[in-house]
Parts: sequence; structure tokens; C-alpha cells
Amino acid sequence: MTTTDSGVRVSVLGLGAMGSALAGALLKAGYPTTCWNRSPGKADGLVARGAEAAGTAGDAVRAGQVVIACLLDHASVHEVLDPLAGELAGRTLVNVTTTSPEQSRELADWAARAGITYLDGGIMAVPHMIGGPGASVLYSGSADAFHQYRPLLDLWGTSTYLGEDAGLAPLYDLALLAAMYVMFAGFLHGAAMVAPAGVTASAFAALAAPWLTAMTGGFEGFGAVVDGGDYTVEGQQSLHFSSLDDILAASSGQGVSTEVVDMVQRLIQRQIDAGHGDEGFARIIESIRHPA
Amino acid sequence: MTTTDSGVRVSVLGLGAMGSALAGALLKAGYPTTCWNRSPGKADGLVARGAEAAGTAGDAVRAGQVVIACLLDHASVHEVLDPLAGELAGRTLVNVTTTSPEQSRELADWAARAGITYLDGGIMAVPHMIGGPGASVLYSGSADAFHQYRPLLDLWGTSTYLGEDAGLAPLYDLALLAAMYVMFAGFLHGAAMVAPAGVTASAFAALAAPWLTAMTGGFEGFGAVVDGGDYTVEGQQSLHFSSLDDILAASSGQGVSTEVVDMVQRLIQRQIDAGHGDEGFARIIESIRHPA
Ligand SMILES: NC(=O)c1ccc[n+]([C@@H]2O[C@H](COP(=O)([O-])OP(=O)(O)OC[C@H]3O[C@@H](n4cnc5c(N)ncnc54)[C@H](OP(=O)(O)O)[C@@H]3O)[C@@H](O)[C@H]2O)c1
Ligand SMILES: NC(=O)c1ccc[n+]([C@@H]2O[C@H](COP(=O)([O-])OP(=O)(O)OC[C@H]3O[C@@H](n4cnc5c(N)ncnc54)[C@H](OP(=O)(O)O)[C@@H]3O)[C@@H](O)[C@H]2O)c1
Repeated sequence: MTTTDSGVRVSVLGLGAMGSALAGALLKAGYPTTCWNRSPGKADGLVARGAEAAGTAGDAVRAGQVVIACLLDHASVHEVLDPLAGELAGRTLVNVTTTSPEQSRELADWAARAGITYLDGGIMAVPHMIGGPGASVLYSGSADAFHQYRPLLDLWGTSTYLGEDAGLAPLYDLALLAAMYVMFAGFLHGAAMVAPAGVTASAFAALAAPWLTAMTGGFEGFGAVVDGGDYTVEGQQSLHFSSLDDILAASSGQGVSTEVVDMVQRLIQRQIDAGHGDEGFARIIESIRHPA
Repeated sequence: MTTTDSGVRVSVLGLGAMGSALAGALLKAGYPTTCWNRSPGKADGLVARGAEAAGTAGDAVRAGQVVIACLLDHASVHEVLDPLAGELAGRTLVNVTTTSPEQSRELADWAARAGITYLDGGIMAVPHMIGGPGASVLYSGSADAFHQYRPLLDLWGTSTYLGEDAGLAPLYDLALLAAMYVMFAGFLHGAAMVAPAGVTASAFAALAAPWLTAMTGGFEGFGAVVDGGDYTVEGQQSLHFSSLDDILAASSGQGVSTEVVDMVQRLIQRQIDAGHGDEGFARIIESIRHPA
């Protein structure tokens, strides 16, 4: 087993698709890595690459200064770790299992009571992306743990620390996933609109990807307006001008559902109805903040 | 007045924000440019930069081999050009006025009857972007005109030719705008979700822009699946796995409207209800193609 400069001993609990990818990146960088999985056999490939296999979760915890939990869900984290709170005390737990913001806060409280340093991680990538340029992992909880173990965390992707509130990583995670799913629906709506004219979805994708990438350049400006709280800022397109009637008419004209775009039109209309039609597009966040 | 290699004489009808930007780019490249605007005075700045001002639209048309129309809407194009059909015969009309697909097809037919070569343009940029790296202009109609005048068209931004059907440029334009507005709504939903945790919209924008940019990388794969017509392709995330329940719960938990994400959830649910839950996410395009 090679050791790195830091020589940090790491243990990985849970060798599903993601846990295996995380452990693989640690081994590649030469970290002494101990692996454990509930069902046997899943450590074999990692052992061939230099990992130690632990017979029990307790053995794995005792072998690591840093313990990575990559299990199914919140319940499985408690099932595996509750009996091991005593051995985890004084160690750092990095929990990258997907949990809700409330569940992460609950785990952080549980860890604090047991004297465990807790860092929550939200992985914005699929397993094959781990260690590559597109992978991003969000962290919240112990700032000390994040800074101390950052070289290790950076092996998986771009690491971003969000704050001491352990619920921040899963909250951002869900908010970014929401934006992604909504963008995907918008892309597929556009593809459905052009299809009856004989345009393939691949041809539309080739234009839509650089177009939407360029349009993400508008987020910074929207952010500044929202944070400033004044939606009347000069130089913005007003809500009156943002009428989606032409888009809706063309969608209907092509025989496709208008529901994807109707969603945006309703957010705009509520602000116009409330007398804000001369204000900027960013104002639709007020429709989202205040459910109808 | 300098002339370019090509020496193509260009006339621009309509000197609003966009027409002035287009004419400015032509002058900067040294094209002999004649300008006309309905209300007087708007050509002055361009004349100072080397343009000729025409007293009437007819004078402008007679001065140009290529006539750019950048007016308010379809009706204003007919109002200005109908009396000039005879003088436009044998020339090329590039109409970048925003029109619907049907209106562009109608103008192409009108031009064909009058012996005018017609190219329709959809400008995917705001005026200050013209001539810069982010500007994109979509063209449809005469392929010959596109290829002959491409050096001129490329002055404004990235030029993309979509096909002989003049309605294609406005159709793509509206489809890309639809995708943009939907993406903006998704971004603002995410910003609304994180706001109660004390996260600024600017901080969220800084993460959301690169995240969504990375996720546009998925469009090509969606396009291939949609074009292939088989949504059961291996390696895709299934609709059952794409449940947005966690996102919806977190949105409600933060006190924000769920309507933005509900839109996507409904598209997913209709496919699950129809027995396609094991198929890939791209299948939601079938919900859009077939209005409920
Ligand atoms: N895959 C992704 O694209 C992705 C992306 C971001 C985040 N994540 C998150 O990463 C975590 C792991 O995902 P994955 O893709 O690796 O899932 P997976 O391939 O389904 O693996 C699940 C792992 O959890 C273990 N497990 C489940 N219930 C357990 C229990 N009660 N006690 C002990 N171990 C238990 C499984 O052990 P057995 O082998 O014994 O069943 C397995 O090691 C999840 O929270 C997931 O949401 C995944
Ligand atoms: N601005 C953008 O960001 C943008 C982006 C993409 C596409 N476009 C499209 O580009 C076109 C022009 O936009 P713009 O921003 O330049 O608009 P604008 O600043 O409002 O200018 C409108 C122009 O149309 C002229 N006009 C209006 N009605 C007319 C009529 N009946 N007869 C003759 N001229 C008439 C106006 O002349 P007067 O000065 O006499 O009123 C003015 O020159 C529109 O179709 C717009 O949708 C604009």
C-alpha cells in the first residue's frame, strides 16, 4: 500500500456504483483506503487495486481517520453508523449519501452529540464522471474538516464549501437538480416544436446547447437584481415585453402541448396582474416565492 | 466611403436599436451602406460613420443589391415593401424583422411572385451583442443568397443556415426562446429554494451557470434517443428514478411554489401512467408531443 504525502487513512462504507468510484479515485491517488460493503464481493476489484477490505463496518471505521459514507439513504446511514458512534468519536465523517436538508441537519446533530466531526457532501455527478473535469461536489458542515481534507475531496471533482449548516449541501443539490430538470423540459419542448418541420432532435440539440450555455450568462444579472430587490433596474427587458404569446401560438401551431411554456407565462402574468408589468423579468421569482 | 473586397452595396431599412446595430457592423467592415428610417433623425449617427442616408425607402432599395429589413413586425414589412415590389425584383431581401413561421412563409411566397430573392433571419442576440462572440443569427429561405452573402452576414454573429423553408428560422428562434425562458424559470426556482437559508441569488447563480452549462452536455444524448425512437436504451436514468418528489418536498419545505417543478413532474407522471416508467427521461417529449 502506497501512502500519500498526507498519509491520511480513509475508509469507504458502501461500495455501490458511487462508493466504488469514490474509493477508486482515492486508490489512484495513493491514499491508504479501507473498504466495506454490506453484501460481500463488492470490494474485490478495489482490493486488486490496493485497497484493504474490512470484514465489518466497525473494522472499517477503526482503520480510517476519515470515514466516507456512501450508502443508499438516511435510514441506511443510521442503521450502519448508530452502533458505531463510540468508535467514530474523534474521527471525521464525510457523508455523501443523498439526504434531505432536514436529514443532514439531523445527522450533524447526532454526530455533534457523539463527538464526531461531520461534513455533508452532495455529489453533482454520475459515477463515471468522478475524478473528471465535469464532476462537482458540494459540501456543508464542518469548515475545519473541509479545509483539512480538501486535497482528498478535490480528487473527486470541483469541491465547493457552502457553510456550517449541514443542510446547505443537500438544499443546493436539490435546487440545482430542479433547475436541471426544468431546463431539460424546456429543451425537449423546443425539440418537440421543431420536429413537425422535419428537424431532428439531434439537430436542435446542436444549436440549443451553445444557445442555453450563452444564456446562462444572464444568471449573474438576474442574481444582482434579485439581491438588490429593485426589479425596475434600467436596461432589463420588461415583463410586458416578455409576453410568451408568440411562443405559445407557434407551439399550438405545431400541435404540441403548451404546458411547459404556460408555466412561465403564468409566473409572468401574476406579476403583471399585480401591477409590475414594467419591471424586469427577474421579478417572476416573486411569483415563485409566493405560491398562488 | 470605403468599399470592401466584395463591394456589395447594402441598404438597411429600419434604424431602431437592432437595425442601427446591424448597419453599424456593416460600416465598421467598410461595406457601402445606405440607411433609411420612417421617422427622421435616426440615420445621423450612422451618416457620421460613413453611411448614406436615403430620403425614401424606395431610394434606399434602389441603392442596394442586398436590402436588410429590420422593422417592427410583419405588418410594417408589408407596409414599407409592398409599394416597392417592382424595385426589389432582382435584388436580395434579408428580412430580420421578427415574424412567425407562417408570416415568414407568406413573405417568401410574396417575394417569389415578385422575383425577389428572399432570406429570412432570426437574430438570437440583443443589439449590443451584434458583432460580438455571443451573437447568433439563424437563416432560412434562399440557400444561394445565404452562401453568396455569407461574409456580410457573418459580420453580425455566428450564421447558421437551416433550410429552404423560410419558416424555419423563426420556428427555431421561437423554440430556442422557449427553452431559454423555461431555463430562466428553473434557475429562479432554484434561487427561491435556497434563499430562505440565507443564500443570495448571486451566490446561487455562480454555481447554477456552470452546472447548467455542464448539463447541456446531455442534450446530444437525449437527441439521439428521441431520433432513434427507442426510449429503453441502456444506461439512461429511468423515469421511475427521475421522481421529483424530493425536490418538490424541499421546495414546499422552503415555503416556495412548486408549480415550476410540478410542470416536469406531470410530464413524467403521464409517461409512467402510460406504462413507460422503466424507459429513459427523454420519453417526456412524448408528453409534450401529445397534449393531455
Ligand atoms: N449513482 C449516482 O449517479 C449518484 C449521484 C449522486 C449521488 N448518489 C448517491 O450516492 C449514494 C449511493 O449511490 P449508488 O449509486 O452507489 O447506489 P447503489 O449502487 O444502489 O449502492 C447502494 C449502496 O448502499 C448500500 N446499502 C443500501 N442499504 C443499506 C443498508 N441498510 N445497510 C448497509 N448498506 C446499505 C448497498 O449495499 P448492498 O450492496 O449490500 O446492497 C450499496 O453499497 C446514494 O445516496 C445516491 O443517491 C448517487
Ligand atoms: N432589440 C432586440 O433585442 C431584438 C432581438 C432580436 C430581434 N429583434 C427584432 O428586430 C426588429 C427591430 O427591433 P428593434 O429592437 O430595432 O425595435 P425598435 O427599436 O422598436 O425599432 C423599430 C423600428 O421599426 C420601425 N417601424 C415600426 N413600424 C413601422 C412602420 N409601420 N413603417 C416603417 N417603419 C416602422 C421603427 O421606425 P420609427 O423610428 O419610425 O418608429 C424603427 O425603425 C423587431 O422585429 C425585433 O423583434 C430585436
